[in-house]
Amino acid sequence: MAQTSIIFRLELNHQQVSFGDVAAAISKAGGDITSIDVIRSGQDSSIRDITVDLADKDEAKIVDALKKLNGTQLINVSDRTFLVHLGGKITVQPTLPIKNRDDLSKVYTPGVARVCTAIHENPKKAYSLTIKRNTVAVITDGTAVLGLGDIGPYAAAPVMEGKAMLFKQLAGVDAFPICLNTKDTEEIIRTIKAISPIFGGINLEDISSPRCFEIESRLAEELDVPVFHDDQHGTAVVVIAGLLNALKVVGKRIENIRVVVNGIGAAGVSICKMLLEAGVTRLVPVDREGAIVRRGEYAHPMWQWLADQPQVENTTGTLQEVIQEADVFIGVSQGRLLKEEDVKRMAPKSIVFAMANPEPEIMPEEALPHVSVYATGRSDFPNQINNVLVFPGIFRGALDCRARRINEPMKLAASRAIASVVSESELNDHYIIPSIFNEAVVTQVRKAVIEAAIITGVSRRIPPDFR
Amino acid sequence: MAQTSIIFRLELNHQQVSFGDVAAAISKAGGDITSIDVIRSGQDSSIRDITVDLADKDEAKIVDALKKLNGTQLINVSDRTFLVHLGGKITVQPTLPIKNRDDLSKVYTPGVARVCTAIHENPKKAYSLTIKRNTVAVITDGTAVLGLGDIGPYAAAPVMEGKAMLFKQLAGVDAFPICLNTKDTEEIIRTIKAISPIFGGINLEDISSPRCFEIESRLAEELDVPVFHDDQHGTAVVVIAGLLNALKVVGKRIENIRVVVNGIGAAGVSICKMLLEAGVTRLVPVDREGAIVRRGEYAHPMWQWLADQPQVENTTGTLQEVIQEADVFIGVSQGRLLKEEDVKRMAPKSIVFAMANPEPEIMPEEALPHVSVYATGRSDFPNQINNVLVFPGIFRGALDCRARRINEPMKLAASRAIASVVSESELNDHYIIPSIFNEAVVTQVRKAVIEAAIITGVSRRIPPDFR
Repeated sequence: MAQTSIIFRLELNHQQVSFGDVAAAISKAGGDITSIDVIRSGQDSSIRDITVDLADKDEAKIVDALKKLNGTQLINVSDRTFLVHLGGKITVQPTLPIKNRDDLSKVYTPGVARVCTAIHENPKKAYSLTIKRNTVAVITDGTAVLGLGDIGPYAAAPVMEGKAMLFKQLAGVDAFPICLNTKDTEEIIRTIKAISPIFGGINLEDISSPRCFEIESRLAEELDVPVFHDDQHGTAVVVIAGLLNALKVVGKRIENIRVVVNGIGAAGVSICKMLLEAGVTRLVPVDREGAIVRRGEYAHPMWQWLADQPQVENTTGTLQEVIQEADVFIGVSQGRLLKEEDVKRMAPKSIVFAMANPEPEIMPEEALPHVSVYATGRSDFPNQINNVLVFPGIFRGALDCRARRINEPMKLAASRAIASVVSESELNDHYIIPSIFNEAVVTQVRKAVIEAAIITGVSRRIPPDFR
Repeated sequence: MAQTSIIFRLELNHQQVSFGDVAAAISKAGGDITSIDVIRSGQDSSIRDITVDLADKDEAKIVDALKKLNGTQLINVSDRTFLVHLGGKITVQPTLPIKNRDDLSKVYTPGVARVCTAIHENPKKAYSLTIKRNTVAVITDGTAVLGLGDIGPYAAAPVMEGKAMLFKQLAGVDAFPICLNTKDTEEIIRTIKAISPIFGGINLEDISSPRCFEIESRLAEELDVPVFHDDQHGTAVVVIAGLLNALKVVGKRIENIRVVVNGIGAAGVSICKMLLEAGVTRLVPVDREGAIVRRGEYAHPMWQWLADQPQVENTTGTLQEVIQEADVFIGVSQGRLLKEEDVKRMAPKSIVFAMANPEPEIMPEEALPHVSVYATGRSDFPNQINNVLVFPGIFRGALDCRARRINEPMKLAASRAIASVVSESELNDHYIIPSIFNEAVVTQVRKAVIEAAIITGVSRRIPPDFR
């Protein structure tokens, strides 16, 4: 977990208080001073930033102690997480400096006119002569941000910026955040279509269900660049990757397993689709009203789609009922809704992916005694199902081959590539998923995605290393 | 002017041709080989990039000569202007590297959730905790790009990218290009409002008249960040700057001059408004149908606005008629529509700003014998009226004081600041406008804009250097 460092900006009145008094007060309140920066120093008073490590993450005690101290004024309290966010986390940089008039006349007027004309005559040249070939929009309406829900477009920005950082650092993709001030499905579709020309791909992010389905499918149809709702497919791709390796650990074949997926929202639908694509023959999707039953009738179009699939079981019942004899439980629902008794009744050598946030469907201490492989979305337990493993490599591949779309075979290829990064000799019940810092992940995902795009005919360019 | 360097990518069949033959052919056709890069070299053939300087800018002769040479295949011809555009001219960079899990947990999940929550509770914090405080959208619909007209959003991108480079290099502003796939006024307004949350300012660019007026004024009203149509106001600000200095050169006062503005489109309207704001009392706006007359009736709402101003002359007539006894001619219209006889009939010590592109309203050889100060939009004549002098400093100032809008006093302050960079001792008829590479320009414009914003009550923050 991140260590909690807090920075207190204090003004000290030298007549009333010494820095020694301040240090003693902080220490007594449980803080460990790690550095002091003098911001301004005068005859009568000074302003200092005091960085303090906290044992118990409770800054309130220190704040109280400082407020009680005569002659000090607490100007600001910032922890390191806030500090790295000051001014935002990405910048836009020129690829080359404009040193003189000659440079200017090439990158701007009058020289740029010839480049514009070349694109006007052949719009495909936008891919070679503009940022389009390496640029992805990370777009949200702020309605389903992390576990925080509908916090709006302003508050969503730090997540989108973080994502843009990861895109660049892990895969060299230029990503720019766009936060939409509308929640209307048609308005979102219209807006994204209107701003699409500069982008080579669209990464949708944290858009709530069920609007996310319509928005993604319409955009995929109406735009000629890849559109990818990460909350759906990023999660699904890494779940399938983890499942492929978990099945190796327990020695079962995907055609034979019975899988319960709990929580049929954005991620759940995509997970179910990919499970079917990957060869699962016995699937039980479960939502709040219980199992979605084959040939049942549902208002939600994605639930109806599931009910129409031959691999979906013709079983009614609650989660507690249908989990009996399941080989695999995949949860993208709510914390602690699975009990120890439930996982006990699963088939032998069971696999549980409990990905609810921040608390998993079942905690490790309850699940681990009864299951063979256990994974969550959290970084402080083993086997983290993290979609940071997915989006950088998927878009790197899609951009490099100028894919028109990201289709099911490309996603499945990405899952297999992620799984393949864990070698047979390394594989065990605590290591089914590679680290996001493993550089082989993006390389392998890119390669697999490009191959699948070429085979399925959605690529518009063969990258040099594939010729 | 930019030197024309062309790069020829050639495949040579070693059995049929030697590099010596190629060099001789290029030289004979008038080219000067400055460098050779071997791209691939094999037993039978090789591929080389040959950089050639051209005296007469005519690559066709060399292309012909190379095509006639047996054993060579011309793969590609690129000049340096195209080369600097390959892959685009800007990138998106993280402000800090994500080196490990601890870093990740600060900039992304789980730490980022606290930052999101802080903004959700107080949306103003978007200015400190996201890129908003330093980020401007450069937005076009591609309808009025340079002198090229309606070339569409894809072909407009290189201009927008060039502008983003200048924003960063000259003023440290992060600017990102947005090219709109719609020409509908309402749709453009809706789209820009929808994507506005991440941006601290909106620079509209190359949107054709008259839609640009409605789009800008509606956005300025409906958004709480500055909106600035550069084609209108950037040009106007630098024209007024040049005029202030030109008046010093000829020793006239702005209250006494009679000004003819020809071409009442996007830039012309803004120039007229600023002239009135700056104190001009005798203004003659002229468009294709002749002078716009005080108390006349016009369908175009901006023309009607002008006709309603008391400083606009009650004079009918063609440009040739009304230019008689004018002190100042400002042209943002068409090349070569002013004759030598016309400028001869202006008042003594006349000032002519002929800014039509690429050919000015009157060429220097015709104008210079008869006028005291002559300026154009071109870099190859003295006194270039270039709005690169304006937008970086205006936005730097507006962002730093978190201005709600960019109002007339802020623009006029920017004009005066640009004019002030040319000192009294430097000032002469060939030097009324500073160079865009003069670093004092952005500093002075920023300062003046912030002062004017504070005085007129549109600032929402006092920058540290103004406290």
